Amino acid sequence: MATIKDIADRIGIAVSTVSKGLNGASDISADMRQLVLDTAVEMGYASKKMKSKASRKVCILIENMDYENIDQFGYEIIMGFKRSAARRHWDVSVIPTDLNMQTSEKYDTYMLKNGFSGAFLLGFTLHDDWIRQLSKTTVPTVLLDNYIPMNNHVGYVGTDSMEGIALAVNHLVALGHTKIAFLNGSKNSMVSEERYQAFVQSMSENGLTPDEALVEYGYYVPDCAKYHVPAFLEHGATAILCASDLIASGVIAEVLRHGLRVPEDISVIGYDDLPLASNLTPPLTTIRQDRIDLGKSAFLLLDGLVHDVTVSKMLLRAKFIERASTAPPKPTC
Amino acid sequence: MATIKDIADRIGIAVSTVSKGLNGASDISADMRQLVLDTAVEMGYASKKMKSKASRKVCILIENMDYENIDQFGYEIIMGFKRSAARRHWDVSVIPTDLNMQTSEKYDTYMLKNGFSGAFLLGFTLHDDWIRQLSKTTVPTVLLDNYIPMNNHVGYVGTDSMEGIALAVNHLVALGHTKIAFLNGSKNSMVSEERYQAFVQSMSENGLTPDEALVEYGYYVPDCAKYHVPAFLEHGATAILCASDLIASGVIAEVLRHGLRVPEDISVIGYDDLPLASNLTPPLTTIRQDRIDLGKSAFLLLDGLVHDVTVSKMLLRAKFIERASTAPPKPTC
Repeated sequence: MATIKDIADRIGIAVSTVSKGLNGASDISADMRQLVLDTAVEMGYASKKMKSKASRKVCILIENMDYENIDQFGYEIIMGFKRSAARRHWDVSVIPTDLNMQTSEKYDTYMLKNGFSGAFLLGFTLHDDWIRQLSKTTVPTVLLDNYIPMNNHVGYVGTDSMEGIALAVNHLVALGHTKIAFLNGSKNSMVSEERYQAFVQSMSENGLTPDEALVEYGYYVPDCAKYHVPAFLEHGATAILCASDLIASGVIAEVLRHGLRVPEDISVIGYDDLPLASNLTPPLTTIRQDRIDLGKSAFLLLDGLVHDVTVSKMLLRAKFIERASTAPPKPTC
Repeated sequence: MATIKDIADRIGIAVSTVSKGLNGASDISADMRQLVLDTAVEMGYASKKMKSKASRKVCILIENMDYENIDQFGYEIIMGFKRSAARRHWDVSVIPTDLNMQTSEKYDTYMLKNGFSGAFLLGFTLHDDWIRQLSKTTVPTVLLDNYIPMNNHVGYVGTDSMEGIALAVNHLVALGHTKIAFLNGSKNSMVSEERYQAFVQSMSENGLTPDEALVEYGYYVPDCAKYHVPAFLEHGATAILCASDLIASGVIAEVLRHGLRVPEDISVIGYDDLPLASNLTPPLTTIRQDRIDLGKSAFLLLDGLVHDVTVSKMLLRAKFIERASTAPPKPTC
């Protein structure tokens, strides 16, 4: 591992200047500081410094996910993480990111500059600059719902999509549905791809072939329902499985707009079990992701990575929550 | 959840007798005690009692796995588990099991009778009676290398086979090998099935199709080499990937017996990185499973399950350890 002297030699400056750059002293230029940090990262100094700290400062970086109130997906995840972290006296900063942050600085440099020993990343996609840099990072990093192969410093926490989707499909099939539509989340996301595979597999384990016209992507936006629900209804769907409760809320509204009833005419299932799920009319049958436990698990995983326990995946069980938005399909006359 | 009175009513005996049965008092018959325990398990009393305990007593149950000295696979796993458990003041009993134990008593009854709040199971296969009972157990249970679907009380810990096998195949392909044989572990085991899938996928990602004649099952016994290595050589294998270091030790001996050299004529890769791997001649290139970390992770998972954090899977990274048993294939003349 590189020392401060190695960094000084590489750049051709004094050790004291490197030290100032690493510690954010005000009497060197911003350009010089950036050069010191980038060189330190490149030479592998960052991870060494981060791991040697007794009291840890970590961050939760958030891109494109709502988390500020209890009705939103990220809220309890962050709460679960913070609770576990507090017990170990870790200091947690919650930092919303944007494209600009990601393009102006490399991930490892950002972490070193700010003195973070590790991070939990929420809401990023595989296309984000910082995610693409993770295949080479040496910063202990935990991702929700995304997986980076072949890097021992990065772990993935999530809910078992295979079982979650199976619970929903099995429930609908047990009620007698065969024309089941699936309104998935964002395209090009690992978790959407997994859920799609899970949907195909669960249908096939129930002796059903998914109808291509009944599978679409809704990007977690309730509004997507008005584009896809009419086509689902036209193709004879009797049940609609949604990749989030938010999508399901839009789907229920759209079904009503067509003069149909939930669940008498069309059954609807959500995903996540956000607080809104039980407040919808009818209360939503859904697949619960325990978000407090996701946060706690992310902390456990990050704690492991910081201590060189190289966990790569930690999956939680999904739970089936039956409410009133599902029923047997209407008998055809 | 059932109370002691519910159990007494169901059997038609006094509450005091139920109490004696649950606590192992000597003044009731063995038959009556068994009836009390079985009824308690059946009525869901067991898990309630186990979860309410302040100081925990758990067990590591071992079937068909060597663990008594440091050269053996189970040794460090148990050590890692015990270390983490000691820090939380859990009391850990290590208990070798056998078929007789499994047929004479149900798993949940055994756990209740002995006052265990949870268990870590090593070396069991999906055919074992106790494993088959796990789909309905309410006892927090962690399995090494086996997965039970749809039960929130059971979790699975293991090393990522997909990446482990990919590391081995990528290494051999980079050296120039294309005729790669795979001597897998036990048939009908989840981990062997996963590794087989991983082998097929890694080969295909490298543009290679696995030759069916070059894939066999070795049941983790060095002796298996003499049955399979001759056929591998006949079919033109230049490298043999083994599902354990033990198998690899047998394979090296068998290759030598055919008047061939390792790695000059045949490359051999092991799996696990047991202490024996570095002591073989030549020292074995292998895929490391960090067994201390497997034990620690199993503890974390069990601790989670006891506290209703329903982790279903926890996978560790596999690590590539390059030694001297692999080399480019011999040029064909």
